[in-house]
Amino acid sequence: MTHSYQSPASIAAQQWLDKLNQTLRQSGPESAAELFEANGFWRDLVAFTWNIKTLEGRQQIATMLAATLDHTRPGNWQLEEEATDNNGVIEAWITFDTAVASCRGHLRLRSGLAWTLLTTMVELKDYPERRGFKRPRGAEHGINKHRQTWQEKRQQEAESLGYSEQPYCLIIGGGQGGIGLGARLRQLDVPTLIIDKLEKPGDAWRRRYKSLCLHDPVWYDHMPYLPFPDNWPVFAPKDKIGDWLEMYTRVMELNYWGSTECTSARYDEQAEEWIVHVCRDGEQLVLRPKQLVLATGMSGIPNIPAIPGQDQFEGEQHHSSQHPGGEAYSGKKVVVLGANNSAHDICAALWEHGADVTMIQRSSTHIIKSDSLMDKVLGGLYSEQAVQNGMTTYKADLTFASIPFRIMPEFHIPLYQQVAEQDADFYQSLEKAGFMLDFGDDGSGLFMKYLRRASGYYIDVGASELIASGDIKLKSHTTIERITPHSVILTDGSELQADLIVYATGFGSMNGWAAKIISQEVADKVGKCWGMGSATTKDPGPWEGELRNMWKPTRQTALWFHGGNLHQSRHYSQYLSLQLKARMEGIKTPVYGMESVHHLT
Amino acid sequence: MTHSYQSPASIAAQQWLDKLNQTLRQSGPESAAELFEANGFWRDLVAFTWNIKTLEGRQQIATMLAATLDHTRPGNWQLEEEATDNNGVIEAWITFDTAVASCRGHLRLRSGLAWTLLTTMVELKDYPERRGFKRPRGAEHGINKHRQTWQEKRQQEAESLGYSEQPYCLIIGGGQGGIGLGARLRQLDVPTLIIDKLEKPGDAWRRRYKSLCLHDPVWYDHMPYLPFPDNWPVFAPKDKIGDWLEMYTRVMELNYWGSTECTSARYDEQAEEWIVHVCRDGEQLVLRPKQLVLATGMSGIPNIPAIPGQDQFEGEQHHSSQHPGGEAYSGKKVVVLGANNSAHDICAALWEHGADVTMIQRSSTHIIKSDSLMDKVLGGLYSEQAVQNGMTTYKADLTFASIPFRIMPEFHIPLYQQVAEQDADFYQSLEKAGFMLDFGDDGSGLFMKYLRRASGYYIDVGASELIASGDIKLKSHTTIERITPHSVILTDGSELQADLIVYATGFGSMNGWAAKIISQEVADKVGKCWGMGSATTKDPGPWEGELRNMWKPTRQTALWFHGGNLHQSRHYSQYLSLQLKARMEGIKTPVYGMESVHHLT
Repeated sequence: MTHSYQSPASIAAQQWLDKLNQTLRQSGPESAAELFEANGFWRDLVAFTWNIKTLEGRQQIATMLAATLDHTRPGNWQLEEEATDNNGVIEAWITFDTAVASCRGHLRLRSGLAWTLLTTMVELKDYPERRGFKRPRGAEHGINKHRQTWQEKRQQEAESLGYSEQPYCLIIGGGQGGIGLGARLRQLDVPTLIIDKLEKPGDAWRRRYKSLCLHDPVWYDHMPYLPFPDNWPVFAPKDKIGDWLEMYTRVMELNYWGSTECTSARYDEQAEEWIVHVCRDGEQLVLRPKQLVLATGMSGIPNIPAIPGQDQFEGEQHHSSQHPGGEAYSGKKVVVLGANNSAHDICAALWEHGADVTMIQRSSTHIIKSDSLMDKVLGGLYSEQAVQNGMTTYKADLTFASIPFRIMPEFHIPLYQQVAEQDADFYQSLEKAGFMLDFGDDGSGLFMKYLRRASGYYIDVGASELIASGDIKLKSHTTIERITPHSVILTDGSELQADLIVYATGFGSMNGWAAKIISQEVADKVGKCWGMGSATTKDPGPWEGELRNMWKPTRQTALWFHGGNLHQSRHYSQYLSLQLKARMEGIKTPVYGMESVHHLT
Repeated sequence: MTHSYQSPASIAAQQWLDKLNQTLRQSGPESAAELFEANGFWRDLVAFTWNIKTLEGRQQIATMLAATLDHTRPGNWQLEEEATDNNGVIEAWITFDTAVASCRGHLRLRSGLAWTLLTTMVELKDYPERRGFKRPRGAEHGINKHRQTWQEKRQQEAESLGYSEQPYCLIIGGGQGGIGLGARLRQLDVPTLIIDKLEKPGDAWRRRYKSLCLHDPVWYDHMPYLPFPDNWPVFAPKDKIGDWLEMYTRVMELNYWGSTECTSARYDEQAEEWIVHVCRDGEQLVLRPKQLVLATGMSGIPNIPAIPGQDQFEGEQHHSSQHPGGEAYSGKKVVVLGANNSAHDICAALWEHGADVTMIQRSSTHIIKSDSLMDKVLGGLYSEQAVQNGMTTYKADLTFASIPFRIMPEFHIPLYQQVAEQDADFYQSLEKAGFMLDFGDDGSGLFMKYLRRASGYYIDVGASELIASGDIKLKSHTTIERITPHSVILTDGSELQADLIVYATGFGSMNGWAAKIISQEVADKVGKCWGMGSATTKDPGPWEGELRNMWKPTRQTALWFHGGNLHQSRHYSQYLSLQLKARMEGIKTPVYGMESVHHLT
């Protein structure tokens, strides 16, 4: 039964879908590609490519279709609701099927041709998720001697998994990323174990400095399946998020081992499984999962620059990720090297607790006030107003995903121009204090910086005012040249006394975790994670159009990287879980268009 | 800004509201009452009466208005959405204001006159709930030396409440009722402490017999603010509900003292507060709350009949509420006295574990198959289909509430007639086994029995088949006359050997808890809880039209009863929390129409 939508935009969109369907069935890839603008885009999340892939232009689209059409066998292209027409751009939400999956997508048409098409896999037809109409029954009504209760089954599973039964999938890292993916895999009946070196889910948040709150607002932060209630704070305090994750893990019935460290992992090509050594609360165990997911945070291993004199320093020095918060440093002299998010948060908390703190800014930073980010950038998709307008989290995620990375800057540059204008006084006050500002190489602001390099910005929640006022001292256009037992000497010749040096100097690529846990060889084989090859600062080309190695197959069989902010973890865990489920069930998953490795870190 | 709805039904409904508004402002109570059918109903939940009250007929309506209009000052009567017309009954969702509150309601019109009007208080204007647009911000952006974190505030509150600070409200009983009410009071910033004698939230469920699952489906069972996710089982196993309640208590930031027993409570008229002695994990404490809520379960204290020879019995005997489950009784002979829900569940579990079990049915029982209850009775409001049709939990609750108890049987009788027809074979098989069946005194089935007497039924999830087959043995039309050391002698003269006797003989009225905790005098002053005076079996008249003493003021100042199934706890906790908040803030709450006490138990 199909619904018929009658607006002119809907008719145009359905006609385009019908033509696509027809060309895919009869006329072949080239004709289908002709339905796109010459520079049109097709972004596919697993549905056609078993990969995360953006095809740019007719040639790439035709080539992808030629390689995938035979086994994908798409059909039943339908509108999901009335299409809209915004200044000549028709936008439509669509559904379709492939041979194995139910799919959803989004289409932008201009003058009858597709500007962008997003295709995403939603559900494997033979393995629907047990929710809504298909939710489990719970009670087994009827008579049945010696049936097992829910509690007994859970207990048995918890006792056997990792011992007498091996998990199909092992997730290393039990933060929001690992937990959210674990929830999706539980829904898909993929036996999964999550391990984390800290004791309880949420501890990674609890152990951070005490004033930490989420910098992203609640509407952006929901976990899969169980959204925060509508009394949840806009910017949740870290301990509250910690509690939520702990409870989420419990009610989602995840198999979670806390206090468990992975000491090594090796892929056994013969057995087609991983041999993973872990230490669980002192007990040495060997796990043999078929799939290994590194969900150890999209930041890799901490970068600490080597600086002459470092080992003679008689104060305390640590990386930002090890920083315990400002409480202990009242009255102390602190030098913070770096000027991104962590540096700002740490400097502000130190100042709050009465430390004498200096930030050393080596290169420019993009700053955006939290309120401006909410109003101008996020608000349309992720805000209370968006919710009131009928925007769901899922639709917001898909809308964001529907914009190919190549053209995303075009969408963002005007927004950040508005921000620059609106907050001109704010930016001026920072420049006056000597702070080096940027809006990204091309003025595209925060998100593009995040996607390209995952660094180089601060969402201002108060520290900028302290820098403008001089309460947080600033040394910019410089860095630490050498360190003496009680001070740092900067490249501009000045000297700062220091009891504590904090290296807010960022993180390496996630494949550093693979080097640490598996081997340098495997880390090099998969190459750098994150970044799309935009040839902007810290995101070297060639252009790849998608984030490297994230949520998709890598050059190492059965090794996966999962991470990102709460939005990305929520949304992309869907595609990663489907890829893992398909492999478990023996569904063919021919991967199209795997990229070559261009960078090792 | 008001929306204008244009359907004929909407126009008729808005015209009626306009007339109501006009008569209330200008012409007075009698004219307003003329807008109702001669036998029309006005059900008010706190909005007009600061009570839970159904007015029946024009005279009662006029009298209520005469007493309440001056201070209530209602206005701004609006449709909330398009009204509908179902065979001449126009139904409309409405909003209005009073002097102190935003309100919502539901109207049924026939031939231009109101058949039923529901008015409910939603929010106190000066104390809006912090959710949606008004949710807390969480992070305190900006600079602020030595601010307290969320965690520090929570800790301080937990340490001081009950010690240096007294709760405004004390809830005795930390089951789903106490917890849900606690969540609403937390939202309203009413300092509240919940105490329970068991260690952790959810333990009351965990300690029940192990095969227990909810007999009501998930759509009926949501807690306030945080609905179950859509992968939640239809009939949740008891331990899973236990985990949910524990998690809910934590993320809702409730102040919950486990392992705490109330040993006595006395109202200090002078100080206008309660003096409550509690023992918290061995520590003796005196609490001084202004308001005391008994949320100890809508079932009161267990009824155990006195039977000659009871004290000579050499086996084990206990009340159903103390029954640990079937595991321990494999191969034992068990007699279960009673034939309602608990009796059936316990018999089935005993049979599953290989006990030789006999049920003794003293009087007839209403049986309905769980599936039939879902399909025929609950489905329209509480089901996946209802959700798909756009029915929200809140709207379902209000719809249910919109039907006055006087005419509720009219709505239910035809549904149960359908059930009787559809499941005729099932009922026949039970009668053949000697089981005494009923559908309530007037054929109105389960819900009316529940509301009138909270007993006398079983929602069949399998035990009936065991009774029909004789696997659970049945003795009906009889009871235990006396007990010997190893057997029971029935009134029909037969003797049953017994290792265990289970008294599934129900519970007393909730005011038994007041007798136990406060005094017999106070228990007698407030009188019986539950039942509406329908003059049917176990629900003696006179007619009161609402459940006695539940969620509304009682004859004992500052004493409240909260309870009921998950649906009722969820919905009526809204009205109870508003009554408590208003009192805390010194808003005038003149109670209209408090009933006299007619029954002590």
